[in-house]
Order: sequence, then structure tokens, then C-alpha cells
Amino acid sequence: MALRPKTRDRIVQESLTLFNVQGERNVTTNHIAAHLGMSPGNLYYHFRNKQEIIAELFALYEAQVDGFLRLPEGREVTVEDKTFYLEALLAAMWQYRFLHRDLEHLLESDPELAARYRLFAQRCLDHAQIIYRGFVHAGILLMNDAQVEALSLNSWIIVTSWVRFLCTTRTESADLSEDMLRRGIYQVLALEGGYLAPEVQPAVRALYERLYVPLELVIPD
Amino acid sequence: MALRPKTRDRIVQESLTLFNVQGERNVTTNHIAAHLGMSPGNLYYHFRNKQEIIAELFALYEAQVDGFLRLPEGREVTVEDKTFYLEALLAAMWQYRFLHRDLEHLLESDPELAARYRLFAQRCLDHAQIIYRGFVHAGILLMNDAQVEALSLNSWIIVTSWVRFLCTTRTESADLSEDMLRRGIYQVLALEGGYLAPEVQPAVRALYERLYVPLELVIPD
Repeated sequence: MALRPKTRDRIVQESLTLFNVQGERNVTTNHIAAHLGMSPGNLYYHFRNKQEIIAELFALYEAQVDGFLRLPEGREVTVEDKTFYLEALLAAMWQYRFLHRDLEHLLESDPELAARYRLFAQRCLDHAQIIYRGFVHAGILLMNDAQVEALSLNSWIIVTSWVRFLCTTRTESADLSEDMLRRGIYQVLALEGGYLAPEVQPAVRALYERLYVPLELVIPD
Repeated sequence: MALRPKTRDRIVQESLTLFNVQGERNVTTNHIAAHLGMSPGNLYYHFRNKQEIIAELFALYEAQVDGFLRLPEGREVTVEDKTFYLEALLAAMWQYRFLHRDLEHLLESDPELAARYRLFAQRCLDHAQIIYRGFVHAGILLMNDAQVEALSLNSWIIVTSWVRFLCTTRTESADLSEDMLRRGIYQVLALEGGYLAPEVQPAVRALYERLYVPLELVIPD
């Protein structure tokens, strides 16, 4: 007999889908309950309000990012790892795109989440620096410490601002596609374009081609 | 006899100050009138509502950016021009910081402003590309067209997202200082760090030093 997902998990997953597709502001707990064919009372038994569901989704997102944003253990980082990091980033951005779209509004209405987010941001910045330094150590990037610091910060800002950039620059903000986010990841890779060691350039060029999405498809005139 | 600024201009300038210091959402037309020592009725004679004041401030910001985001006429661009562009950007960001902080909220509540912003964004992206291409043409940056396109887009995102990054990452979001924005401009300069022609590197290093603000002063642990 296949195990049915627990009610609590179904609420979390359905909320994520609705937030991503319709925008968090347009989705109430009543919508979520209706989509799951359950009474609002049953939903409230598991989550007192929408903020609690959002906090749980943020925790899942956080765990996913913390899971991949680290150096491989016991070996040097390679060019192939670059593909892994960028694809993992793209997957997390896509799966939790409502967080990127509505972040400021979410943080304003929940000081606890805001405090948690600040720690998460600081941790990501630290880990990004460690990873970029790993690439420098492996001879893949040719950079000094100040450059690594600036690059890590710019990466963080591009990753966390890309979805909002799309929303303010496109006419229709509801219909984000995975390709539009892919271009954001290409932009992150482009940040280190000037620092690549000559011998890794052919391999990285292949990665650029894999991530490239023409700008006209992302922000049509 | 010194000319007194016109009432309309005084309203616009006082609104800008209040929006920057207190945040646009916390300032009503009544606050603005009280600060100017005028009746709300007198203010409404000039502006029907806060949106109209914001639209006028956006137009001023737009004109200021359009004014400097262009190549010099009749000569090649130089390393000294880089200082000019970055200082002009910093001044515009600082003078109109409320726009950067509250942008998404402002665009959501005013479709006309949102449409105007989209055209402005597209124009800035085009002009940034023209300027970066000017630096390539002058032999200051060593880049191909795809790299220039990605760099222009990354610059735009860093410039327009920096204030929001500060607000979500710092504990107290009200007290932005010009130094915190200066670090944002440093981050924009860092985007092209890997593409500088060897002979301009000493001059640009001086520019880095001039713009550098330690990260601990921007986002304290």
C-alpha cells in the first residue's frame, strides 16, 4: 500500500504551488483549504495562519540551499562542480520563486522571519565566499581576496533580485518561466567571466551555452 | 531680493526629504503640508494626491539619470569618465533613495508609473551597453559583445537592488548612510574588475580605493 502524504505536508506543498503560480498575496488560507478539499478548520488545526505556512516553506528553502552551498569534502572543487552549483541554485530559485518575488513584503509582516532571513543571508554570503575561494585555490578562478568578497556579494544580489527584476521590467509579471530564471543563473556565471583561468575557458564556455537564454525572451521590448 | 522657490517646488522638495528619511509609506500628504506650514487644501491645489508627487519626483530622477548616462560627445571615453559616471550614479541613488527602497510597492499602486519605469529601465540598459561598449572601443575594457550585454544587465540589477539589499540584510533599515550606498557603487565597479586592460589598472585601483567601504560598516554581523 502506497503511503499517502501526511495532511500537514500536503498543505505545505499545495501552498507552495499556489503561492508560486498566483503570488502569495493573492492566496488565502481559505483558497488553500478549498484546493485541498478540506475545511478551513482542518487547515487551522495544522497551521494557525498563512505566516506559519510561509515560515515552514522558508525553512525548507533554507535547508535546501544550506544543503548544496558548501565545498565538496576531501577533494578540490572542479569545473564540473560549477554546473552542479548553478543547477542547484536554479532549481531552488524556481521551486521557491514566490519567496524571491514577495520577499520584502513577507519580511515586513513577520519580524521573526526577517531575523531568520538576515542570518541566512549572512551564512550564504560566507559560504559563497568559501566556495569562490575554493575555485581560486583550485586554479580555476584568478582573483584576490577583495575581488572574491565583491564577487560573492554581487552573486547574492543577482540571485535574490533576479525575479523582482523580471517582475518590474516585464509587462506581465504573473507568467514566469523556468527559462527566465535560467537567464538569471547565466548572469551569475557571467560575474566571474573576467577571472577564468585560460585552461578552463573552453569548459566554461560550454556551460555558458547551456545556460544562455536570449534577453528578448526574458524582457521583450 | 532673493527669489523664493515656488510653492509647487517646495512641496516636491520637502516630500523628497520626508520620503527619503522616513520612508514613503510613512508619509502622508498631511505630514507634508504640516512640514511646510501650509493647509492640506493648499497642497491639494498643487497635487491631487501623493501619487502625483511621486510621479513628479520620478520624472526628476529620470531626467537626472538620462542626463549623465550617455557617452561624451566628440571624443573617446577615458578612465576619468568612469569616476564621473560612478559619482553621478551615487548622487542619484542617494538623492532619490526612497525610490530604490520602495520601488515595487510604488509600481504596484500606479500602473502609469510602472509603464514609465519599464521604458526607463529599457533605456538605461541600452545606454549602459553603449557606454560599456565605448570603454571597450577605447581599449579600457577587454570584452566581447555577450560579455558587455551580461555586464550591463548585472550593473542595472546591482544599482537598482542595492538599497533593498541593505534594507533586508540590516537590522535597522531606516538609517541608510551615503557610505552604505558608496559600497554599492564599488560593487558596480567590481563587476568589470576582470576585464580591465593592464595599462589602466593602476588608475582604476585608485578609484576602487576611493569608493571602498568595508563590508562590516554596511552589514554588521
